[in-house]
Formats: sequence, structure tokens, C-alpha cells
Amino acid sequence: MIMTIGIKSASDVRSLKQCVPVTFNYDVHFTKGLFELDNPLLAQVLITDDEDSPKKLLTVIDAGLLQHQPTLLDKLAAYAEFYQNVFRLVKYPAIVPGGEAAKNDSKLVEQIHQIIDCSGLCRHSYVLAIGGGAVLDMAGYAAATAHRGIRLIRVPTTVLAQNDSGIGVKNGINAFGKKNFLGTFAPPYAVLNDFDFLTTLDDRDWRSGIAEAVKVALIKDADFFKFITIHAVKIAQRDMQAMQELIYRCAQLHLKHIATSGDPFEKGSSRPLDFGHWAAHKLEQLTNYSLRHGEAVAIGIALDSTYSYLIGLLAKSDWQQILDTLKALGFSLYVPELVTQLHQPEHPDCIFRGLREFQEHLGGELTLMLLETIGKGVEVHHVDLSAYEKAIALLKEQTN
Amino acid sequence: MIMTIGIKSASDVRSLKQCVPVTFNYDVHFTKGLFELDNPLLAQVLITDDEDSPKKLLTVIDAGLLQHQPTLLDKLAAYAEFYQNVFRLVKYPAIVPGGEAAKNDSKLVEQIHQIIDCSGLCRHSYVLAIGGGAVLDMAGYAAATAHRGIRLIRVPTTVLAQNDSGIGVKNGINAFGKKNFLGTFAPPYAVLNDFDFLTTLDDRDWRSGIAEAVKVALIKDADFFKFITIHAVKIAQRDMQAMQELIYRCAQLHLKHIATSGDPFEKGSSRPLDFGHWAAHKLEQLTNYSLRHGEAVAIGIALDSTYSYLIGLLAKSDWQQILDTLKALGFSLYVPELVTQLHQPEHPDCIFRGLREFQEHLGGELTLMLLETIGKGVEVHHVDLSAYEKAIALLKEQTN
Repeated sequence: MIMTIGIKSASDVRSLKQCVPVTFNYDVHFTKGLFELDNPLLAQVLITDDEDSPKKLLTVIDAGLLQHQPTLLDKLAAYAEFYQNVFRLVKYPAIVPGGEAAKNDSKLVEQIHQIIDCSGLCRHSYVLAIGGGAVLDMAGYAAATAHRGIRLIRVPTTVLAQNDSGIGVKNGINAFGKKNFLGTFAPPYAVLNDFDFLTTLDDRDWRSGIAEAVKVALIKDADFFKFITIHAVKIAQRDMQAMQELIYRCAQLHLKHIATSGDPFEKGSSRPLDFGHWAAHKLEQLTNYSLRHGEAVAIGIALDSTYSYLIGLLAKSDWQQILDTLKALGFSLYVPELVTQLHQPEHPDCIFRGLREFQEHLGGELTLMLLETIGKGVEVHHVDLSAYEKAIALLKEQTN
Repeated sequence: MIMTIGIKSASDVRSLKQCVPVTFNYDVHFTKGLFELDNPLLAQVLITDDEDSPKKLLTVIDAGLLQHQPTLLDKLAAYAEFYQNVFRLVKYPAIVPGGEAAKNDSKLVEQIHQIIDCSGLCRHSYVLAIGGGAVLDMAGYAAATAHRGIRLIRVPTTVLAQNDSGIGVKNGINAFGKKNFLGTFAPPYAVLNDFDFLTTLDDRDWRSGIAEAVKVALIKDADFFKFITIHAVKIAQRDMQAMQELIYRCAQLHLKHIATSGDPFEKGSSRPLDFGHWAAHKLEQLTNYSLRHGEAVAIGIALDSTYSYLIGLLAKSDWQQILDTLKALGFSLYVPELVTQLHQPEHPDCIFRGLREFQEHLGGELTLMLLETIGKGVEVHHVDLSAYEKAIALLKEQTN
């Protein structure tokens, strides 16, 4: 006998509710001398899968890094030789341009797909991506889309990538002139942070990544902000031990946020970690990317902190401390692009146009993070442009 | 004071463990007359997001379907007009080839990306994909990779897509001559199964999707298999009510498996739903895809059931009932390609080569699903080729 499912009219609907829980686990390791033969970390990470060895591993390497680390390929080869029972390198590494160029050429993703195909990598093989955030983003996108996801091990080599972009769950490349137009949410298999890579960074790259630490400290952790304030001068002077601690604590806060925010794959309209970022994204564009991301974020933090103070949300002493810390770290808090076309908020060159672009990027209503005290952010959905104009004027005064 | 993190030597490692829980929810609705004005289902699904209306919606439509449903575009336009407060259609739908052609041309994905860009779709917009499994797979891949994931609503129009491929968490296209080489795991926003689409299927497509129902019944649900056996002749004769029940129960079992298997994104080596599929994939290839997927799956089910009987796992009466049911449904259980180069298991044209290919696709050790009774599968890691040869001979006899 047929159990009729009783569809009688167009509006008579039967439904099945589906709920798919997925848990992504990955470790973020902090080490030095990652490819020294007496450092078994990478080999240990590779055998945690309990599968047959040797595993296949394809390296994708930032060409900019190779200039500073000319022996890296030889070291990798020696490491692979030493641990040959654990893994085998795909014959040739994929050496790709560093910086935003890695994300602007979709041919690079195709090339990595081709190597994955020719080398017979499967879903149980590994891509080891070594470089700055842009290279990790591009290699991550290639790995995530081949065979519906080859395991990605990230080796971030900049401050920014080690404490923020390289430890998260996103990848992407640019297309149609838009940042990260193509990409997926795909947690890595593991992240290996080697502090030795930081020694060859130039001063701007060293400093730039610190801005994300200031950001996450301000909205989440007053103690961490205190740490940054106390050690600001030392960090600016490239004290390695202070920087290691900064990266570790910043990574810890970012990871905790991703794990506990309730929306790791950003289905909603809120981006609670993006304090100071609406202005930062716009300033990067207005300066034709002559500002590094972190330099722009520092200005964005200064701007939104000042605005928070001016509308009565943040105490004056907190505001002053934030600006002092940013200055002690060596950041500039003002660029002339802040006042271009200031009184025409919809003009493409006006900083305030960044508010709408920020909103459109995620969809839904405008959602900005402001500060109510050091260590605690608060979301708002409306802004007062005249107060923002005063904030910009105050920043200009501060830096005179 | 700096809290040193104490990295003293290369092997001195500090680690952070990350655990990201993500829950994907989606409903699978069963209806008729999906685009009739008095059927509010689609409009209702679109407003469940509690966000501003009207929403932007891009349709991707199977060109093969349009041949059988020439008024579909007009109906869609009228539906959109009627529910204009809820959603607006992107001006032109993307009309794409149906069947495997949809997955063989990577330009189609790029075209959809272009439309998404030009139309200003964001992560809160919708792609409505209407068609067979291949079109849904391709459109799903395009949607999943734009802006790191635009919401995908699938409207599967074949038996196979409504009870199996269209309700799951995968997408993909072919590349480098390999099926699904590019793709991601990305659950849909919703699935809308409209039974009216089934009336225009030809007999082979009507029958083909039934094989996946037989498969999931055999390994998971003896009662469902009984239902199929009792109604086999009716279903083969295109009884719509019996087919609706078959699709609903098959979808229910597939959804439950995905939700509770513990490995919805297939990180391991096991594919417990792929009963009969190692031979099916190989037979599709050996027959140059003149066999439909479901027709090949029926033969694969017959083969692995017969093998299960011959090695003493499955009772003779169960085995006979399985073969009888498949025959009553109108499936052929034998093709000459089963014996091509039979005694050279590594020959590319030998069916047994399919075992290795099946293993390589997922990586890890060989894992096959066999039957220990109707309604209960069991995994094995070794096979006896001589018993498989006898199974093939038995199938040939059966069909004489």
C-alpha cells in the first residue's frame, strides 16, 4: 500500500529539515627553525593523520620570501630527504609572486590545479603554502577547490599573517577588480608560525602587522592592550621576544573569536573583529595601496576611537592612551586622503563613501564596531558624519 | 614585563588548539506547481532570512529542461512580478547546457561569476538553480566561490537530483578529464523539489534515479526496500504517487546519513553510501557513458549483492529478492563490458581496475560496502576477484 504524502494543491508542502554539524580542528604551532633537521614539527604534524606514509606534499612559495631566504629551497629539499619516510615533495615547488599580485592573477590558481592533477595529489595529500597573507590566500583557494579540498598547511611569514590572516578560516583571490571576489571558507589542516621568518621583514612590514594586535586588544582584552602599551617602544625597535608574545596573544584572541563568535563562516551582517576597518579599506584604495593594510588599520583605529570619544562613548583618558600607544609603535595617524571631498559623502574619493562600501560588502544593514572602553567594543548601526569630521580634525591636530 | 613564551631550541614548540564548530541548516521541500502564483513556497523560503526585501535572485536554468517546459521563463517572470515585494530577478537568467556538458565547460562558471559581479549580488543574495544534477553541481560551484558563498536554492528536476545529488552538500565541475576535479562542500540554502518536473522525463531518466533509492534502502532500511519491491511494477509504469513516496523516503535517508555519519565533508576514506558504485563508475566509463549513472548503479548493486551472497555474507533469498526487484523496475543487470579483459585486473578496460580507481579517488585504503542482509551494509577492505568473476557469470545467467 502506498503511504500517500498528500500533496493536494500547489501550496500543500511537505518538508524535511536538515541540520549538518561539522567540526573543524586545527592546531596553530609557534616555532623557530621550522626546516632545520632537528625540528620534527612538520613531520609530526604530517603523521597525525594516522594514514599511510610517505604522504605527498606540494609546496607553494612566495617569491618575495625567496629573495630574503635564498637557501630556503635547499633547506626544504634536505628536510624532505631527512624525513622521506614521512613525506615526499612534489618535484617542483610552485613559486608565485608575493603580495597582492598573487591574488590578481587567476592563472596562478589554475597552475596549482594543474600541478595537483599531474602529481596525483588526492584529498589526503598536502599543500604547504609558505609566504605572506596574499600567497596563503591564493594557495588556500587553489587547495580548497581541488578534489573538494586538499589539506592545507600554512606557513605564514609576516607579522600580519602570523597573528591574523594566516590563522583564520578564509581564502580568496581578487576578480573583476574586487578584493576576494572569489574564495571560500576553508579552515587549514594546520598552521606553522616560524618566528625566524620575521627577522628579514623590512620595518614597515614588521610594524604593519602590529595594528591588528592593537585592534583585537582594544575590542576584546584590556590586559593585552596594557602589554602592548608597556612594550610599544621595544616592539617598534624590533625586540623579538616582545614581538613573539604579541603574535601569540593576538593569534590566541583571533582564534578564540573565530571559534566562539557563533558565525565563523560569516553568514550574518556583523563583522565584530573589523574595528577600524571601514576607513582602512577605503584609505588603502584612496592611497592607491601606498599605505600597507596595517598602516591603514592604525589610522582607522585612531579615527574610530576618536569618534567613540567625541560621541561620549569612550573616556578621554582611554582615547588619549590609544593614540599614544599607536604613536609609540611608530604609526602615523593622519593622511591627507582623510579630507579629500570630505563634504560630499557619496563622492568616490570621500572617506565616508567607505561606510557604504563596507555595508555593501557584507550585505544587510550598516554595522560598525566602536569602543565603549579599552577592551570592550560595541556595535552601532548609525553614524554622525559631523562628529566624524571633528574626529578627523582632531587627528590632524594630534599629529602636528 | 614580557611573559616569555620560552622558545629555546628548534624543537621547542608552543601550540594553540583550534576547534571551529559550524552548523549548516537547510530545508528540503516537496511541492507541485512551484512557480504557480498561488504557491507561496519560494517567496516564503526567501523571507525566512529576516533581512530587507526585495532580495536579488539570479536564476540558472538547464537548457534541456526549457525544451520540455517552454513556458518556464514566462512563468518565472510572472511569479517574480507577483512577489516583487519579496524578490527581484536579475534581468537575464543564465541558460546553460544540461547533462555532463554543464560540468565540462569551465567558461560557464566564469559566466555566472560575471553576472554575479555585474548584477551586484552579495552574500545575502540568491542563486536559484533549476535543472538536473549536473546543472545544480555547476551552478552550486559558481555560487559557493563568489563572495565566499552566495546563497544557493536548488530546484532539482530529475528523479536522481530530487532524491540524491540535489539534496546533499557537494558541488563540482570536471577538469583535466576528471569528474568533479574542482568543487567544494557547500550545503544549499534550501532545496525545492517540484514533482511536476518529473512528468516530462523520458523513461530512462525516470527509471535511472530509482537505483539510488534501491541502494540506500538495501544498506539502511529494510522497510523501504519492501516498499520498493511491492511497488516496483507500478513505479516502472510511472505511477506518480508511488514515485513521490519513493523520492521522499530516499531523500530522507540520504539527508539523515549526511547529518549523522560524522563525516559529512568526507575527510576520511570511507564512503558508506557508495554501495555498488565502484563498478558503476567504471561501467559508465567503459560504455562511454551510454549507460546512465543510475543504470550503471543498478548493475553495480546487482554485482555487489551477488558477490555478498557468494562469499557467504548475504542469504540466498535476500540476494534473489534484490535481483527480482531490480528486474521488476526494468533495469538490465548485465552488460558485455563486465567481462572485457576480465583476467587482467590492471588493464584499463577491465572492470576490476575500477576497484583501484575507486580507492585512489578518496585516498587511504580500499573500503567497499557489501551487504550482510537487506537493510544492513558492512564495510570490507579486501576482495576475492575469483568470487567476483563467479558473480559476473551468475549475473549473465540470470539475464539470459
